[in-house]
Amino acid sequence: MSLYAELAQRLREHIELGFYKAGDRLPSVRQLAKEHGVSISTIQEAYRLLEMDCLIEARPKSGYFVPEAKQQSGVPNISRPPQRPLDVSQWEEVLNLLSNRTENAVCQLQHAMPEMREATLKPLIKSLQELTKQRPYDGMTYGDIRGDYSLREQLVRLAAASGCSLHPDDIIVTSGCQEALSVCLRAVAKSGDIIAVESPSFYGSMQAIKAAELKAMEIPTHPTEGMSLEALRMALDQWPIKAILVTPTVNNPMGYIMPEPRKRALYELAREYDVAIIEDDIYGDLAYEFPRPKSVKSFDEDGRVLLCSSVSKTLAPGFRVGWIAPGRYRDTVTHIKYVSSSMCPILPQIAVANFIRHGGYDKHLRRMRALYQNGRDRLLADIRQYFPVDTLISYPQGGFVLWVELGHQYDAVKLAQVAASHGIYVASGQMFSATGKYRHCMRLNFNDRTAEIRRNSIRLLGQLLQSDAALALAS
Amino acid sequence: MSLYAELAQRLREHIELGFYKAGDRLPSVRQLAKEHGVSISTIQEAYRLLEMDCLIEARPKSGYFVPEAKQQSGVPNISRPPQRPLDVSQWEEVLNLLSNRTENAVCQLQHAMPEMREATLKPLIKSLQELTKQRPYDGMTYGDIRGDYSLREQLVRLAAASGCSLHPDDIIVTSGCQEALSVCLRAVAKSGDIIAVESPSFYGSMQAIKAAELKAMEIPTHPTEGMSLEALRMALDQWPIKAILVTPTVNNPMGYIMPEPRKRALYELAREYDVAIIEDDIYGDLAYEFPRPKSVKSFDEDGRVLLCSSVSKTLAPGFRVGWIAPGRYRDTVTHIKYVSSSMCPILPQIAVANFIRHGGYDKHLRRMRALYQNGRDRLLADIRQYFPVDTLISYPQGGFVLWVELGHQYDAVKLAQVAASHGIYVASGQMFSATGKYRHCMRLNFNDRTAEIRRNSIRLLGQLLQSDAALALAS
Ligand SMILES: Cc1ncc(COP(=O)(O)O)c(C=O)c1O
Ligand SMILES: Cc1ncc(COP(=O)(O)O)c(C=O)c1O
Repeated sequence: MSLYAELAQRLREHIELGFYKAGDRLPSVRQLAKEHGVSISTIQEAYRLLEMDCLIEARPKSGYFVPEAKQQSGVPNISRPPQRPLDVSQWEEVLNLLSNRTENAVCQLQHAMPEMREATLKPLIKSLQELTKQRPYDGMTYGDIRGDYSLREQLVRLAAASGCSLHPDDIIVTSGCQEALSVCLRAVAKSGDIIAVESPSFYGSMQAIKAAELKAMEIPTHPTEGMSLEALRMALDQWPIKAILVTPTVNNPMGYIMPEPRKRALYELAREYDVAIIEDDIYGDLAYEFPRPKSVKSFDEDGRVLLCSSVSKTLAPGFRVGWIAPGRYRDTVTHIKYVSSSMCPILPQIAVANFIRHGGYDKHLRRMRALYQNGRDRLLADIRQYFPVDTLISYPQGGFVLWVELGHQYDAVKLAQVAASHGIYVASGQMFSATGKYRHCMRLNFNDRTAEIRRNSIRLLGQLLQSDAALALAS
Repeated sequence: MSLYAELAQRLREHIELGFYKAGDRLPSVRQLAKEHGVSISTIQEAYRLLEMDCLIEARPKSGYFVPEAKQQSGVPNISRPPQRPLDVSQWEEVLNLLSNRTENAVCQLQHAMPEMREATLKPLIKSLQELTKQRPYDGMTYGDIRGDYSLREQLVRLAAASGCSLHPDDIIVTSGCQEALSVCLRAVAKSGDIIAVESPSFYGSMQAIKAAELKAMEIPTHPTEGMSLEALRMALDQWPIKAILVTPTVNNPMGYIMPEPRKRALYELAREYDVAIIEDDIYGDLAYEFPRPKSVKSFDEDGRVLLCSSVSKTLAPGFRVGWIAPGRYRDTVTHIKYVSSSMCPILPQIAVANFIRHGGYDKHLRRMRALYQNGRDRLLADIRQYFPVDTLISYPQGGFVLWVELGHQYDAVKLAQVAASHGIYVASGQMFSATGKYRHCMRLNFNDRTAEIRRNSIRLLGQLLQSDAALALAS
């Protein structure tokens, strides 16, 4: 468990045991930080977590208090997907999301696009412009089949920050993380095989499971701790699962970070049952805590973890620069990557390599972490203010999306349709399930447009949910 | 049959029936052109074809004659692959070819890279530079899932030139033709299915068959007419073939153009047996004849033809701009393309669209056709001069590669190794078969470096084949 979560756990016990009673003021952040010898921000995170669970509340200029009556707006409960392998559906819905014509858009909360206008990204743009001008012929040939070596060297550096010790030859460059995931699924499983996934899960990996003729086994997932290892063990006992596909560090859509001991336990479990782990780390470097959490791959001793990532969330998706650290599956992964799209364009790879080498990447991420964390806090406050009291919200530890669970009477698919007619777009929850569960949920980003526009959009969504129209949204 | 092939056929009959006897002079090109009301170049092509078959010979400044004794150096015979579906092997060999370190390279005859230094390509390079400078943010976002609309509009124009009438929404942009082929294979066939292919065939499509867990059924293929429809019908009768994968217009590796009536007959056969056709048209626009030959897709009435192509051979591979016209498979193809690598980078698509729209593409191809045809004639002459007399050579009708069949006693795999130590690289034939046939064959391009360097390289290869070292090359 990370430090702040541990502290929150201790405080939670204190409250539940009655050390602090309803109406009591909690120690100040500064005081507690001193007491525990930790940073102010660690305490702030612990308090925020308790706030999310409605165990404490902040009162402007007075500090944190145990509320008088237990409020609503906690984090969602552990998910309860059907406990059997299933074919993935929902393609129509995903296609619809992807092809949205949004000329009338007021606020596009449905996508997961990073902020790309920050000054810290400029050196990368400049570098690509210069390369395009100065080395056009390098941009026109087939490059190295495993990806540009200078990039792979820099990716080794990034991997080291998450606790992995890799060599450039342990990495294969791909056209984004989507290709990485698709290639890895095909490398570890054959038609008909079963893949264990978090529930909810990113729709792109689900659809890749479908296209590879595999079945998805959704595992109950906890909104702060990640995939339930107990449920996973039961599934492994019961079904011939081939691989576990997880996004444990800054999950999409929920934003949690699986605590480090659980990551290690996940690896041990995979080892015990001799299955592969495909780890999607695309948001990993966007964890608000620094240094970033370790990846599951960092515990890998026998090459069974295939780490997938890209710069699509940290820098920009249009570069299509992704990669795989395929462990013992390297040969198969190389083969499938080659047939999948042959080589990747060289110049974006070199530009990204330069950006990392010269420190631009670290600097940019420092900026983005702060920006996104601020966006999270504002959106959380907006949702709490405007949405029905029984709304549950995930508490992202990184990245720029969160997961909203409405009361079961609501239909977020209908809400999305009505909201779209007002120019406000949300990603309704059913796409994040193999079988169309989570119709009462949605994923929202907290970085499209400005905080003010987002606030107004949330207010409008809230009005729709609370007004007469809500009847139409009840399924 | 195309006009020149028909003419050649008639002349062949005349020679074989004895109208022209050994030592006779044939009518002049000009005379025959007038007689048949066709262009000079059509007659020249017909004569070249007969020359390849050693039925006539050119004598400098005197014209064409029926030779005294039958010479060697004709085109290869129809291929005779094993007549059953097989798993594709040869990946190690392909990987080796792709990852060749060629620092010592004198001449790289092994690749199939277009000439990219011609002035006619400059406007495209310029346009990409400008776009990168002026619209960096368009280059950084996820684009349209089916590809940029402006590009798809222009691709409709290109398709029209090969006789297809398409709408932009009938086209899906891919990361090169390799992704197009992979996606189409997965769209039309499921694990274990059988795909009929030409023999020899491009190794990239063979490896895609392997990766999709499909089996390849190699069909006997004629070096000037393409896949034998008679053999194909027998295979269709005998095996549950799911799709036919062909490169009928400027084949890789042989360079033939399947005559138009046979293309139509191929389509009719696919219809009769209700199987799909995946048509790889990547070299189609590089046919030396103008206007270019029709595609099989142009005969498609019920959407069973999936046309695949890219600008990798016509312009440059590094742009990774390819596409599919998937016919009735559009929905499945969209799904598999999305999971395969999600969207393609936008700016190269726009640059290529502009290049086509403003006439740069047509102008460039005009230049390249002439250049490559000249390269072909020179390389053919070099091989005839320096290689053993029993060498057979394909007679490309477009593009920049040809196929050499050595006497069966030779091992081109060994030759490739020995030649590599001299800095001369060739692609040995076994990669173009599912099962490692064609070890006595090789594919050579006729555009790497200069004609002089190629000539010297061919001389060296010839020396290796004819010297004592040849013993070592005999298997
Ligand atoms: C969790 C996750 N994995 C993979 C992807 C695909 O990433 P890329 O755009 O690099 O292909 C995304 C993008 O939305 C994602 O959220
Ligand atoms: C016949 C054929 N098809 C497909 C391809 C792959 O093309 P691309 O580089 O556009 O992926 C090639 C490239 O060598 C080829 O020769």
